[in-house]
Amino acid sequence: MSEHTVIFQPSGRRGKIAKGANLLDAARSLGVEIESICGEKKTCGKCKVQVEEGFFEKYGVDSKVSNLSGWTKDEERMLSLAEKENKYRLSCLAHVQGDLLVFVPEESRGGKQVVRKKAGKLKHKPDPSLTIHYIEMKAPTLHDPEDDYLRVVAALKEQHGVAADRIDIHCLRVMAGALRQAQWKVTVFLLRGEIVRVAPGKVETYYGIAVDIGTTTVAAYLTDLKTGRAVATESKMNPQVIYGEDVMSRITYSMQNPGTGLEKMHNAIINTLNEMIGSLVEEHMITRDDILEMVMVCNTAMHHILLKLDPQYVGVAPFPTAMSKALDVRARDLGIGINISGSIHVLANEAGFVGADNCGVLIAEEPYNSEELMLIIDIGTNGELLLGSKKHGVLSCSVATGPALEGAQIKFGMRAAPGAIEKVEIDQENLEPRFKVIGKELWNIDAAEIEAKGICGSGIIDVVSEMFRAGIIDKGGRFSKHAPSERIRKDPQNGMPEYVLAYKKETSIGKDIVVTQGDVRAIQLAVGSIYAGAVIMMHEHGVEKVDKVVLAGAFGSHLNQFSCLLMGMFPDVPLDKILSVGNAAGDGARLCLVNKQKRAEADVMARKVRYLELTVYKEFERVFMKAMQFPHMEDQFPTVQHVLDEIPDWKKIAKEKEKA
Amino acid sequence: MSEHTVIFQPSGRRGKIAKGANLLDAARSLGVEIESICGEKKTCGKCKVQVEEGFFEKYGVDSKVSNLSGWTKDEERMLSLAEKENKYRLSCLAHVQGDLLVFVPEESRGGKQVVRKKAGKLKHKPDPSLTIHYIEMKAPTLHDPEDDYLRVVAALKEQHGVAADRIDIHCLRVMAGALRQAQWKVTVFLLRGEIVRVAPGKVETYYGIAVDIGTTTVAAYLTDLKTGRAVATESKMNPQVIYGEDVMSRITYSMQNPGTGLEKMHNAIINTLNEMIGSLVEEHMITRDDILEMVMVCNTAMHHILLKLDPQYVGVAPFPTAMSKALDVRARDLGIGINISGSIHVLANEAGFVGADNCGVLIAEEPYNSEELMLIIDIGTNGELLLGSKKHGVLSCSVATGPALEGAQIKFGMRAAPGAIEKVEIDQENLEPRFKVIGKELWNIDAAEIEAKGICGSGIIDVVSEMFRAGIIDKGGRFSKHAPSERIRKDPQNGMPEYVLAYKKETSIGKDIVVTQGDVRAIQLAVGSIYAGAVIMMHEHGVEKVDKVVLAGAFGSHLNQFSCLLMGMFPDVPLDKILSVGNAAGDGARLCLVNKQKRAEADVMARKVRYLELTVYKEFERVFMKAMQFPHMEDQFPTVQHVLDEIPDWKKIAKEKEKA
Repeated sequence: MSEHTVIFQPSGRRGKIAKGANLLDAARSLGVEIESICGEKKTCGKCKVQVEEGFFEKYGVDSKVSNLSGWTKDEERMLSLAEKENKYRLSCLAHVQGDLLVFVPEESRGGKQVVRKKAGKLKHKPDPSLTIHYIEMKAPTLHDPEDDYLRVVAALKEQHGVAADRIDIHCLRVMAGALRQAQWKVTVFLLRGEIVRVAPGKVETYYGIAVDIGTTTVAAYLTDLKTGRAVATESKMNPQVIYGEDVMSRITYSMQNPGTGLEKMHNAIINTLNEMIGSLVEEHMITRDDILEMVMVCNTAMHHILLKLDPQYVGVAPFPTAMSKALDVRARDLGIGINISGSIHVLANEAGFVGADNCGVLIAEEPYNSEELMLIIDIGTNGELLLGSKKHGVLSCSVATGPALEGAQIKFGMRAAPGAIEKVEIDQENLEPRFKVIGKELWNIDAAEIEAKGICGSGIIDVVSEMFRAGIIDKGGRFSKHAPSERIRKDPQNGMPEYVLAYKKETSIGKDIVVTQGDVRAIQLAVGSIYAGAVIMMHEHGVEKVDKVVLAGAFGSHLNQFSCLLMGMFPDVPLDKILSVGNAAGDGARLCLVNKQKRAEADVMARKVRYLELTVYKEFERVFMKAMQFPHMEDQFPTVQHVLDEIPDWKKIAKEKEKA
Repeated sequence: MSEHTVIFQPSGRRGKIAKGANLLDAARSLGVEIESICGEKKTCGKCKVQVEEGFFEKYGVDSKVSNLSGWTKDEERMLSLAEKENKYRLSCLAHVQGDLLVFVPEESRGGKQVVRKKAGKLKHKPDPSLTIHYIEMKAPTLHDPEDDYLRVVAALKEQHGVAADRIDIHCLRVMAGALRQAQWKVTVFLLRGEIVRVAPGKVETYYGIAVDIGTTTVAAYLTDLKTGRAVATESKMNPQVIYGEDVMSRITYSMQNPGTGLEKMHNAIINTLNEMIGSLVEEHMITRDDILEMVMVCNTAMHHILLKLDPQYVGVAPFPTAMSKALDVRARDLGIGINISGSIHVLANEAGFVGADNCGVLIAEEPYNSEELMLIIDIGTNGELLLGSKKHGVLSCSVATGPALEGAQIKFGMRAAPGAIEKVEIDQENLEPRFKVIGKELWNIDAAEIEAKGICGSGIIDVVSEMFRAGIIDKGGRFSKHAPSERIRKDPQNGMPEYVLAYKKETSIGKDIVVTQGDVRAIQLAVGSIYAGAVIMMHEHGVEKVDKVVLAGAFGSHLNQFSCLLMGMFPDVPLDKILSVGNAAGDGARLCLVNKQKRAEADVMARKVRYLELTVYKEFERVFMKAMQFPHMEDQFPTVQHVLDEIPDWKKIAKEKEKA
């Protein structure tokens, strides 16, 4: 097959690409990250590139001289006229026919996410599954020629009262040498009755690693199993992001590339985990061999890809997982680079869309032990809700928030990376915004340079909530025709209203950053779906209100709780009853690593949680439609009533002005 | 490093060999098998080769022009003058210095053993650990979105009352597809609570493989787990034979080649097992994937090498094994080519020199259930003895028979391969022998061509016993000076007496096959050690006699029971109480494959057998010395007394003749 040279700017990466490959695949193969939110379903329009050389087919003018395949109908629809005239293409739709020089505009570049998954202190005492025991034995004699294994087992019993009944073959292979080298004084590592390591002499400190594999971010915590403390933390982007931004895109990618898609994504996460393990052990001056157990949490799709299980069935109704029970897998069977006898514990999935990560949230927050009725919202690419108390038991559901809350399907949406607008306030009188971007200390109005690149999840919630509070949009999400600001204008292409959050001079992308009618609709959908899920669960419990709302997720910890409530993301509670707990899923993983009772609890509780499949509830649609209103007309939100009362009615003000 | 071309005749194998390598290693690397009984300890003198070109250093004449290293003192001692003059060298002592053409004489060639390990019918009903269960399930719906795994577990419970609590990750990876492909009608393979295979549709027949890894021979039995019947049998030489004929030689080889020796021998047996599995499944028109479990028995050294455990400690007092308990290892962790989720069960070792093979013998013969006091002798390169009954309990011991009973350390000894003399009778009047060789139908006196190559184990026992019965040797093993036969002559080199069993014309090795004084001594040692072991065990039990003798081992089934008794290999019992049971170790392996009660019994019984370490018994030496006599002077052997009474006393006859 013939190959052509393709160069990507500004990185300058170049390489030979097979004729016919699309530019997105070409970029991936050269390590150039291009945003691809829809997983090549031709719906997101995010993977724009500008062809600088090699594409001579002028838009609207026929020409056969081109090193790139011709225009497609999808591009016709998704690109603006100006973009088309400037030789912008969607990289998933343009195929290599000859040598090319391609520019990846800043807005299309995959950025490095700001990792916000810090490890806090856990409230449970260490009592890990993996234990260590120092033993001393007598060497065998002709009168006592007992074998090495039973000698060790007997010493464990006699000296520590612990029972071993198995040994891993790889450990057995080196045990004879270790026993004799250390003159029969060794430390035995025991995992669920199995001897997995025999280290010479007395080992005082030992470690495990807890991992939270998010759709976007992977966080790993090197944990001292004696103290339970996280002694080192490492975070990385989930490398699968290049195969699709959300879980459905990745499932689609796997289905569209049978045999190779799953393999590639699986290998990508395993490689990243191995790099992270390497960094953690190096940082703490230990070795991979010192790690005998890891605990992992992730959503069901990530779970399946991690274990190389076909994720296709999880992706379509009725969304059955291959395995909901917690699983212990040999690290070597997954290619994970810890001690060869080491083990990986993956927490239980609760249901098709409520994964092991939610199980982590569950045992970290323990709604089943709570006197108050808790609503726990774990916001990621999907929203997973738990509602329960000691008295009520716990319900779970998954709501399709869509990726809007993570900045996707938003015109200028992006991940929480440097340059993303993360906080917004709008003046209720002049409708001028104040905003803050990730990576800058100062708010825009105080800073000389801002270089905003887009809007991340917490920013989009803030801005939409503020637009509502300032009367720019109404309860139904429609733009007010009367709001007095030049920032409210019409998109010249489709005539739809939009709000300019940042003018070109404040951005690094050479254009204004706006919030469109479409963006508002996406947020309405996300907020409404969470609220509707909560309402269905309340109906199921037969309650009228909840006592407490817990916002979890790396995302959750940065949300403006007031903004959320103002839009009606969840039923009314006093503001001091809305808690942001950060990465509760990761906390759950760490708990299961350091405390075996919590691990057992996770298994039991994951099965006790009753999963509600919302799509089978007839009322869901009705509640959802209603919940799309900021805050829902029929429901009461006393906590924010004083704010609602002060929302300017620009139509009325305009009329009054007219009269005056 | 420089390399030289070395060619081995008559096979014609050639290749580049690194300068300095010895000829034995060179031969192995080119796939040429040369007998090496002592494992390069320079004691056996079996690895003779004749250098045809490249070795110009004439014996006794100094010359510096040679492509081979010079004579060594060991060769000086172990080779005859004629051999030295004809440029015979010991291949382990001659090192490559340049190009060479080497002839491997027939007596030095590693022959293919005649495999005598047939599978008989087992007396226990099939009730295997591995079970299969056909289940039908409903597909998941939104109202019943239970995961695949729990759906299968529930169906197993409901439809068959069996409990599954685990699934292998590799099985889980393909299960979702299998379930849907077969429309939720599948057969589940269950091994100790773990789901290891989910096959579409209804599977009616399924198989396992039992393996007996002997020091010399490997036998594998493809077994129908529904009927318990062996449906195909495959036997091969243990490929480790090229690294040493007996277990001690192989342990030595491993110690002398740290890092590589064990690896090579391990890989050799794994490769051979994989070839055998391939042949078995091909013969029976199934696939490797159809095999989910294998059961293996072997002695402790073979056990350690199979599992890649360092065998060095098993080789020196107090001979502790790394692991005596039965072990279940994933086939993939050993590189064994059956279903990737398959498992290998290795029976328990009883003690350092009483391995899993003896555990197989134990449960096949069940002395612990016997009303009669049974002496079980498993004869291989070492002898393993069991003595016990229901009333007495069971004792075991290992006796260092040495390899003489397998044809090694015997001047013309060889393995039971074609051309080996296996049965011998000697006429009491004219002292002429009759003998039969493996691979020929007729006895020597009736056949035109014999082409004897050497004497195998059963042959050497026969001939020594017959020499005693004919008065050629006395009770002490000394040659009679008066026996009237030209066949009794003196070795011209050392002046020691020998008996010509086959003249040059009856052999294919171009020389007479003789039985030497040294050979007789080796058999005395072997027979004496077995007897002494039996006596120590009888003392320990406080009994004067045994009721029954069982001869086990591939070898045991071909022994002449009368010959054994005549030499006093075991205490006197009536001839009809001496049984040859064939490969009892292999029977034990098959039993554990097809019957899980027997498998559990093996674990319990292996621990209940009391191992006697003979070297700690003061009386052992005395009994052993006494037992070296044919049959032991102080003990009674009424069963053979009539034969003993008729042994000609040639000294007396000669005197009478003189008088007359």
